[in-house]
Amino acid sequence: MLSLTNIKIVLIETSHTGNMGSAARAMKTMGLSQLCLVNPIIKPDSQSISLAAGASDIIKNAQIVSSMQEAIADCELVIGTSARSRHLQWPHLEAYESGDKIINEVQQGHKVALVFGRERVGLTNDELQKCHYHVSIPANPDYSSLNLAMSVQVLCYEIRRAMLLRIDHPKQPIEENAYPKDIDLERFYQHLEQCLIKTGFINIHHPGQIMSRLRRLFTRARIEQQELNILRGILTSIDKQQ
Amino acid sequence: MLSLTNIKIVLIETSHTGNMGSAARAMKTMGLSQLCLVNPIIKPDSQSISLAAGASDIIKNAQIVSSMQEAIADCELVIGTSARSRHLQWPHLEAYESGDKIINEVQQGHKVALVFGRERVGLTNDELQKCHYHVSIPANPDYSSLNLAMSVQVLCYEIRRAMLLRIDHPKQPIEENAYPKDIDLERFYQHLEQCLIKTGFINIHHPGQIMSRLRRLFTRARIEQQELNILRGILTSIDKQQ
Repeated sequence: MLSLTNIKIVLIETSHTGNMGSAARAMKTMGLSQLCLVNPIIKPDSQSISLAAGASDIIKNAQIVSSMQEAIADCELVIGTSARSRHLQWPHLEAYESGDKIINEVQQGHKVALVFGRERVGLTNDELQKCHYHVSIPANPDYSSLNLAMSVQVLCYEIRRAMLLRIDHPKQPIEENAYPKDIDLERFYQHLEQCLIKTGFINIHHPGQIMSRLRRLFTRARIEQQELNILRGILTSIDKQQ
Repeated sequence: MLSLTNIKIVLIETSHTGNMGSAARAMKTMGLSQLCLVNPIIKPDSQSISLAAGASDIIKNAQIVSSMQEAIADCELVIGTSARSRHLQWPHLEAYESGDKIINEVQQGHKVALVFGRERVGLTNDELQKCHYHVSIPANPDYSSLNLAMSVQVLCYEIRRAMLLRIDHPKQPIEENAYPKDIDLERFYQHLEQCLIKTGFINIHHPGQIMSRLRRLFTRARIEQQELNILRGILTSIDKQQ
């Protein structure tokens, strides 16, 4: 069954009431309902709810959390929006590819987070590195600043388009390997860090960039569940040696 | 050469300043620049220009006309936006097909009008019947009201996507037959009406629905230039008989 409730739209530090309402409306026109607000600068109060017009239910039911980590904890796939021009080497999706990718995951029962950054500055590099893919909307190089709600509209439109295509032309989801939830990856990173501290590879007083580099590597590679099991097994075996 | 300047976004009787500005921004992010306002309820004044932020040039340069007829006079292809649910039998494009259709025409040097209706009530049936195609954005049946600027954003995005695809994978435009401009079609309809009045088929005092039915038929069929020449020839031959 194809349901869009496993797709979460994550807005980080939204600062304009109107944008929150317009984003909620954009989601609802495309049939999406799960909104998660990370540290909203404006509160989803009565004003933003009234600006959301017929989509106020989405704002009322929004999950509010204090970190991106928390927002994506239960998700197997995390996609972050980013202007094309960033020079970060990272797995990339065009907007028109993202819908199919997301629907394919949803069909396998996975939860997906689609993450939008702040109105002016987007996502930080740190946040982008928590994403398995970056998605960009092709824009006029001379005037590329789609506003937040417009970006939500276009990407939710692509999700709906991919869903309708899947309904019209049913196909089995492409069998991908099982992927761990973000929260399980976090447990692995903690385990890894403790282990490397114990082995002395990481100096707890001067940890340096080691963990963030390892995170980058594993996120980009999108660790499969089975691989995670192996890695955890390795760590446990190291633990036992000591 | 692929240039988007042959594509005209036509907004009919826009009534909110904010919508005009947002529509202009949406166009510009996707590289479109030609805006035509038909009987705008709000004037493109300093307020709407300031709301358009970096896209104020588009509002300043907008063509302002008093009828849809005038807006589309120089266009070979006219596409009107419409909710899917209308029960008008008419050639229909899905949003994702419309970009390719439009770019294909542009590649042949044709002018294209993409027409958006009033905020609340959209296009009238009369206006829809002036269009060769209707295009709709797939939406949540329980909440299908995309606002004006959001619709402009999605369809302009599809145009840009189709353009980039054409650049990445060059192909010859699908050779379509030449099509007359709308203004030439109008001349034909006038000629036809005069002719049918002269033959007595149309009673000038009780003209009934004949002309609007003929217009519907020919618009739906999208008369080719050569066919138009033939039809005009027929009318002239009838004129001479009398």
